[in-house]
Amino acid sequence: MASVQSDEEAIRQLVQSWMAATKAGDLSKVLSLMADDVIFMVPGRQPFGKEAFIASSQNMKDVRFEGRSEPQEIRVLGDWAWIRNYLEVTITPPQGKPLVRSGYTLTILQRNSAGNWVIARDANLLSAQ
Amino acid sequence: MASVQSDEEAIRQLVQSWMAATKAGDLSKVLSLMADDVIFMVPGRQPFGKEAFIASSQNMKDVRFEGRSEPQEIRVLGDWAWIRNYLEVTITPPQGKPLVRSGYTLTILQRNSAGNWVIARDANLLSAQ
Repeated sequence: MASVQSDEEAIRQLVQSWMAATKAGDLSKVLSLMADDVIFMVPGRQPFGKEAFIASSQNMKDVRFEGRSEPQEIRVLGDWAWIRNYLEVTITPPQGKPLVRSGYTLTILQRNSAGNWVIARDANLLSAQ
Repeated sequence: MASVQSDEEAIRQLVQSWMAATKAGDLSKVLSLMADDVIFMVPGRQPFGKEAFIASSQNMKDVRFEGRSEPQEIRVLGDWAWIRNYLEVTITPPQGKPLVRSGYTLTILQRNSAGNWVIARDANLLSAQ
């Protein structure tokens, strides 16, 4: 019997897909997981959207990425949701030492017109270890 | 004629009350503006709740606080809402130089059982200037 995937499961899956697509360098997949008007927030930088995300990703093309996530809580509010997540990522430039960053994110998600959950606003508080 | 305050206006008012109560050192007023299970997130520190907030505030008792806020966007979702805010704060210890911090916050609000908006989750990305 087919089971209907719950919104919470779909959101967990979104996080997994994001990490896997980032690791694989699959930018178009990553972009499909965010709203067109997404806003990313990180410390010490102005909030930025999809275009700036693309530019940053292209600069990171040759960087190796490993990461794991541990969702702390997920709350679904109709066609919106929020998730508080713990992330640990390792970024290794081609001729450089691995950089480890870990910490928490607070993310607002939206169900898009196709019925898929996408990232709408993301506050990323990861810092160096 | 009395006008019904919109949720968005009530949330703007919450932000103003927070800043004013912090400046006045009115901890019990500040505490009344957060949910009992509130979680605050800042870079480089584990997320913390109301008890840790109280402890930090008591350590900051003699610190002078000035701040201004410029809400960037507010979205109301029934009994939940989120706000993206720009803050600039100046913290002056009794025998010290003023420290200026500015940046963005992403905050999730909840309407409590008394019908008042309170802070439920707060990601604070302010950094030194």
